[in-house]
Amino acid sequence: MGSTTESTHGPLQHRARRLGIDTHAERVVLMHKDCHVCRAEGFDSLARVEIASNGNRALATLVLATGDMLAKHEVGLTEAAWNDLRVREGDWVEVRHAPQLTSLGDVRGKIFGRPLDESSSLRVVADIVAGRYSPVDLAAFLTACAARPLNRDEMRALTAAMVDTGERLRWSAPVVADKHCIGGLPGNRTTPIVVAIVAALGILIPKTSSRAITSPAGTADVMETLTTVDLELDVMRRVVEREGGCLVWGGAVHLSPADDIMIRIERSLDLDGEGQMVASVLSKKIAAGSTHVVIDVPVGPTAKVRSSEGARSLADDLVAVASHFDLQVIPLFSDGRWPVGRGIGPALEARDVLAVLRNHREAPQDLRARAIDVAGAVVAAARGITPTAGRLLAEDALASGEAWSKFQAICEAQGGLREPAEASQRAPITAERAGTLRAIDNRRLSRLAKLAGAPDDLVAGLRLDVVVGDSVELGQPLCWVHADTVGELHYALEYAARNPDIFDLDPA
Amino acid sequence: MGSTTESTHGPLQHRARRLGIDTHAERVVLMHKDCHVCRAEGFDSLARVEIASNGNRALATLVLATGDMLAKHEVGLTEAAWNDLRVREGDWVEVRHAPQLTSLGDVRGKIFGRPLDESSSLRVVADIVAGRYSPVDLAAFLTACAARPLNRDEMRALTAAMVDTGERLRWSAPVVADKHCIGGLPGNRTTPIVVAIVAALGILIPKTSSRAITSPAGTADVMETLTTVDLELDVMRRVVEREGGCLVWGGAVHLSPADDIMIRIERSLDLDGEGQMVASVLSKKIAAGSTHVVIDVPVGPTAKVRSSEGARSLADDLVAVASHFDLQVIPLFSDGRWPVGRGIGPALEARDVLAVLRNHREAPQDLRARAIDVAGAVVAAARGITPTAGRLLAEDALASGEAWSKFQAICEAQGGLREPAEASQRAPITAERAGTLRAIDNRRLSRLAKLAGAPDDLVAGLRLDVVVGDSVELGQPLCWVHADTVGELHYALEYAARNPDIFDLDPA
Repeated sequence: MGSTTESTHGPLQHRARRLGIDTHAERVVLMHKDCHVCRAEGFDSLARVEIASNGNRALATLVLATGDMLAKHEVGLTEAAWNDLRVREGDWVEVRHAPQLTSLGDVRGKIFGRPLDESSSLRVVADIVAGRYSPVDLAAFLTACAARPLNRDEMRALTAAMVDTGERLRWSAPVVADKHCIGGLPGNRTTPIVVAIVAALGILIPKTSSRAITSPAGTADVMETLTTVDLELDVMRRVVEREGGCLVWGGAVHLSPADDIMIRIERSLDLDGEGQMVASVLSKKIAAGSTHVVIDVPVGPTAKVRSSEGARSLADDLVAVASHFDLQVIPLFSDGRWPVGRGIGPALEARDVLAVLRNHREAPQDLRARAIDVAGAVVAAARGITPTAGRLLAEDALASGEAWSKFQAICEAQGGLREPAEASQRAPITAERAGTLRAIDNRRLSRLAKLAGAPDDLVAGLRLDVVVGDSVELGQPLCWVHADTVGELHYALEYAARNPDIFDLDPA
Repeated sequence: MGSTTESTHGPLQHRARRLGIDTHAERVVLMHKDCHVCRAEGFDSLARVEIASNGNRALATLVLATGDMLAKHEVGLTEAAWNDLRVREGDWVEVRHAPQLTSLGDVRGKIFGRPLDESSSLRVVADIVAGRYSPVDLAAFLTACAARPLNRDEMRALTAAMVDTGERLRWSAPVVADKHCIGGLPGNRTTPIVVAIVAALGILIPKTSSRAITSPAGTADVMETLTTVDLELDVMRRVVEREGGCLVWGGAVHLSPADDIMIRIERSLDLDGEGQMVASVLSKKIAAGSTHVVIDVPVGPTAKVRSSEGARSLADDLVAVASHFDLQVIPLFSDGRWPVGRGIGPALEARDVLAVLRNHREAPQDLRARAIDVAGAVVAAARGITPTAGRLLAEDALASGEAWSKFQAICEAQGGLREPAEASQRAPITAERAGTLRAIDNRRLSRLAKLAGAPDDLVAGLRLDVVVGDSVELGQPLCWVHADTVGELHYALEYAARNPDIFDLDPA
């Protein structure tokens, strides 16, 4: 039957034109409404199409233009589409109906209650990694995984799929240490300190970190203010072989690339489901070749994990799923009631990290203590010694300055250590009455830092002037908003004005 | 605090430029990456922004351009954004960070298991109607409602919200009849026939229909091939006052406008959750001022409703939820195993409808019988007589030609009756072996019709040459694909070649 039409069909080609439009990972192509391909193929705006050129293919969303923006023989490509096709201006591009994606049937199945299995997870994740999902498709998948919480088999299947669709690191050392913190606690930036301590003690810790999902800063964002974090795989290897540790962005080494694509949508939906979280965390650790991972789970009413039961069940899931991949997970529960340190936002948190590593007297002691707890647990697991013994070794490595030297060495190996930049705009948030600071709302504090521009703007965020328990005067600054633009500063201050109870002041 | 920055902030304005880009309901604005507003506000691509001009406001998705496509002082608007702001070329447009949408918190709540209530439903639906949701937001809400099936209180709340955010019709007559079919059965186009019969019998039936969601045709699509269906409210009123019935598109009279916005996303996700369906169906009927609605529920393994239990529970939900709105729902279960009539697709189904109304000898008898069943149930409910008595009246009105005269009168009142157009491209799908036709897969048959271009292309679809039970020869045409473009014809035939078992032929 096909043959009856092949002859009349044939490839319908257009000339590539770079629009210089940035739609991030979303691939969009523009065509003129009256062009022969649109008429022949019956394309409507927002149709999914396959574009092909010089043997490269990509799926994209079609948008129709009527004006004089495009000639009828041109197809306009946004940056993501342009880069996928690797075309030059004027190259021939073929545009066809997008093929059916079998994996979207798997997504519908999940929406209506059919659990993900190994093959369906792999189909979905492979299509996501290949950039075949529209933002709407991604939103449906992520929402389904949050609304129909994944069971452990699904978490295992999704984790395996995310590992199998990315790079995988292998290390000669028998023990490869790692750590992770289930976010939700502003300013809890222990990772750079932990890596410095653990590497200083001669334990291999090739750390890859993600950028923020729904928080004002991820470790990769923070480290970016101090050194280069987007290292290619071979460069990262050299750093680790030389220093025994590194602090790089996971996305650049393509460990679990599916995760990096999903993060943007999770962010815009402010969505971060538990099963998704387990698969996201473990797939990165497994792909990084880790054998022992300490996972810090801060628990508090406004932290990501709100109850000890929730923390327990999350930890059990992590341990159970990890065990299928020869990965030992050591959960560490910590106080997640208030923010940690003084800075919230990439550059501001980096300053706290440096102060602790340099053993400055005014360094935030809560951040220091937490870093030692986590590092101690890592050392204990890696060396097979008691937590107490591990903790002592960790504290000593930090106090002696060995950790600081190791941190500098790692940053030098990654491209040089620099001091974090300063924000150009600052304004205080002041106490509306005198009283004792009873609590701080982590979630709205994070929202405030994000409105100021964090994490996309590295210098933006907050610097806390008070800690819970302090008694404050009327008009006393509680924290300073740092922003790089007046617009964002204004936007954050407006939000603070509407939410005076982010800082819970107990009068009398 | 605000005052410290007001002075430096102020409105940041750009000149409106119409891009002539069609993104349907999605509002997109383009700005130059290096423009002062983007720098001052710290905008990133895909950020949600609020645009304002001459007192009109809209939320939109921002996309950054680098090339020479836009000047730095210009903001490019896609058609939806352009129409919302009602600007003229060169008008001042202010672009700000989008305000927080409280209702997105309600969506997240639903995702994680918090049921919708009256206020949250209203917040969500009001924001959707105001065009404040991005496609990603809409996808998350619709997926959540499908993955966490709505209970009856939620269905009631969502229905009320969808009614309250649209127009609402009131009629003087004490009895206002209506009918609806839970789709999934290709070619089951009884509505135009039922309306003609019921109106001919002097019962008020102001019928508004939707376009297809996931099927190859909706009644509005079919009627569009015969007359004008996008009537304004007052025009529709005049038609109904004169003829006692009408056949118009619900979207044009703004009954439950939220539904019309959600449909496009449901379509692209091929998603149609039960609670969503109940709210969508009932909100339209309530807004239309109906008092008695017959709901046809075809049941079959490849119909939308697959089991009699499923049909029962859906009917119970419809009856129960409707009762809160003084609407009487009469469920009617029908055989949903095979397609109905010969045509599948707007124009092709219209031909079947005309044949039945004109009492042509070759008119599809299955469609005729179903139309009489539904019309009979409507008449019985409206007149308070027995189903049998209602059925006899209906059959008589059709056989006597009164229904056909009424149908012509209604179409004339709506703007004139015309014959449906013909497709330019046709090709047969032939039997790959001799045998008896045991079954037809409704879902894949619908998919086939959609690949041929239905419903967006009104003349596209399928014309069946065989019915279940026929014995066919090798190579005999089973159906003809009708398309308006070679591309679509080819695309449909390819799919048919990959799915020879859409027609289940029993050899011997």
